[in-house]
Amino acid sequence: MTTAIPSKPPVETDVAVIGAGAVGMFQVFQLGLQGLHCHLIDALPHLGGQCAQLYPHKPIYDIPGIKACSGAELVERLREQMAPFAPTLHLAQQVQTLVQQDDGRWLLGTDQGTTLLAKAVVIAAGVGAFVPKTVKLEGIEALVGHSVHYHPADLGPLALQGQHVLVHGGDELAVQAALDAVHHQAASVTLMHRRDVFTAPEALLAQLRMHQDAGHIRVLAAQPQALQAEGSALSAVTVTLPDGNSHDLDVQQWLVFQGISPKLGPVADWGLELVKKQLPVDTGTFVTEAPGIYAVGDINTYPGKRKLLLCGFHEATLAGFSIAEYLTDKPVLLQYTTTSTRLHELLGVTGTLPT
Amino acid sequence: MTTAIPSKPPVETDVAVIGAGAVGMFQVFQLGLQGLHCHLIDALPHLGGQCAQLYPHKPIYDIPGIKACSGAELVERLREQMAPFAPTLHLAQQVQTLVQQDDGRWLLGTDQGTTLLAKAVVIAAGVGAFVPKTVKLEGIEALVGHSVHYHPADLGPLALQGQHVLVHGGDELAVQAALDAVHHQAASVTLMHRRDVFTAPEALLAQLRMHQDAGHIRVLAAQPQALQAEGSALSAVTVTLPDGNSHDLDVQQWLVFQGISPKLGPVADWGLELVKKQLPVDTGTFVTEAPGIYAVGDINTYPGKRKLLLCGFHEATLAGFSIAEYLTDKPVLLQYTTTSTRLHELLGVTGTLPT
Repeated sequence: MTTAIPSKPPVETDVAVIGAGAVGMFQVFQLGLQGLHCHLIDALPHLGGQCAQLYPHKPIYDIPGIKACSGAELVERLREQMAPFAPTLHLAQQVQTLVQQDDGRWLLGTDQGTTLLAKAVVIAAGVGAFVPKTVKLEGIEALVGHSVHYHPADLGPLALQGQHVLVHGGDELAVQAALDAVHHQAASVTLMHRRDVFTAPEALLAQLRMHQDAGHIRVLAAQPQALQAEGSALSAVTVTLPDGNSHDLDVQQWLVFQGISPKLGPVADWGLELVKKQLPVDTGTFVTEAPGIYAVGDINTYPGKRKLLLCGFHEATLAGFSIAEYLTDKPVLLQYTTTSTRLHELLGVTGTLPT
Repeated sequence: MTTAIPSKPPVETDVAVIGAGAVGMFQVFQLGLQGLHCHLIDALPHLGGQCAQLYPHKPIYDIPGIKACSGAELVERLREQMAPFAPTLHLAQQVQTLVQQDDGRWLLGTDQGTTLLAKAVVIAAGVGAFVPKTVKLEGIEALVGHSVHYHPADLGPLALQGQHVLVHGGDELAVQAALDAVHHQAASVTLMHRRDVFTAPEALLAQLRMHQDAGHIRVLAAQPQALQAEGSALSAVTVTLPDGNSHDLDVQQWLVFQGISPKLGPVADWGLELVKKQLPVDTGTFVTEAPGIYAVGDINTYPGKRKLLLCGFHEATLAGFSIAEYLTDKPVLLQYTTTSTRLHELLGVTGTLPT
């Protein structure tokens, strides 16, 4: 992935929310109740952040009023809740730059060339952007996006037909990619993992064994050691086998599935004060030291802070009020969703429950 | 109701929570996650506070992860959630006194004679204790609990047989009480409301008309003006009719259903600093100015405070951590319900969801 140079004028908006995890999603809901539309940006190609990435099938027991639900279920519930306030989504892209303009607004630029000019920005970046783990080998950077691909979502655009393909990883995504590479008529497919054990559903493993027996997929327990390339074209990967010997593989396309993990990343470069990699905020407004920049959820810090979802929901709520007051320069009175006809209109509800 | 004099030694406990509304219930849950058992006290005879009393059938749209639910449903959900940490309940009683002892603990006394000696107290009293509206008439105080009864939950103990009964109110509870008084073989039953209009389900109103036609219940549009009594025994109530004339009613038992509404009440007498009838708290710990006394939910105030349920849930959570640290004098590390085996044990769960 290369940093694209923006060619279009930035999209002007009231609020941009960086991070589409549970707290960022609830931030969109709360800003919606304030009558504000959001742009929502996330490095992942889907909503849900940590809930979706780290514990989609694990139960959460401490969301008030929900005795138990999985991370995936919570994300689905929040998606339904924020649906009336459908944000403009910018997924699978990471905010790289955040610079204040002369008029006080903030210019955001992503690694996909999206630019936004926002009056207020909420950083709901959690533990950081979820990005694929990279392979550390000399000369690999020049190949990324050409013959080395980290967690490609779709193999179609990679034109694998007739190519020697190395799939590198041990989980479901890696196994699926090896099978897909066969389907895309690669010249050869090698599935490499440090151990000869794969974590994937049994049905997928059965398919793997079938293609292995038919000679379509070679399974290799090994670790990469060096590469040979010319320009951006990879030609071979030297690997270390369990017995310590080296072996050269013909490889033209290398698909890396080493997992996706959070990285604080560019937040550290935006010139905002960080305390232990977190953004100090005011507990009444959740504004950072920079006017117009708010921080909610795991990325912020204040006396007594606990990194809990339900605390992030509270923070997003007060930030919502604070942003509405910042944008209008007027006090915003509290209204209740139980009784306010204005909130019912915004939510698109009648204010009565089905009997 | 008279103020009873405590005759038993106080019950010693770690934490007492005053107020069993939604936030008080979630406070019990959060203290449970800290391994702490609570005593929970409320003026109402049931859990749920405002949710149950003011909007049981109205929808709430802003609880994170719950698109819409009624007040009653939220109370039921919180009851299920706190069930593993079953608190000792003291319902239908109001905390009257809260006095610090020499050893730093707090002595609570209720109007029913319950006394508790607690190391920490959480005031989750919302907009105050929900208490029945009283009738202002000279001489009425001496009759309360004897021949005047505010919102009696059960007519059985009142021994209405052969008595002249005045039921005073215009809602479902008043109509039901008039019907019940007939059932209890009162000598006469008068249902009095300022207007000849009753708000109750049609089936109940049909029963009322039937008993009215049969001469069992007299319906009267009138307002009380004076009373005649000897000691604690009521003999007559003088009422003003819509035409301005007065009329004397034989009354031995007067059942008053003028509604239940919140009153800040004794909180104001506990010597704690109040700002606009609210308790200022620290946003990191939710402690008040008094060591060991915490305040969460609508009763507290701090810069940026919004009286929202989801904010109260956050406050109860941080208060839970803070109380655990106050009681052990040690920092309490954050554990997640998703992964902590200790929390799973406390919750009585396995940590996996049914598939």
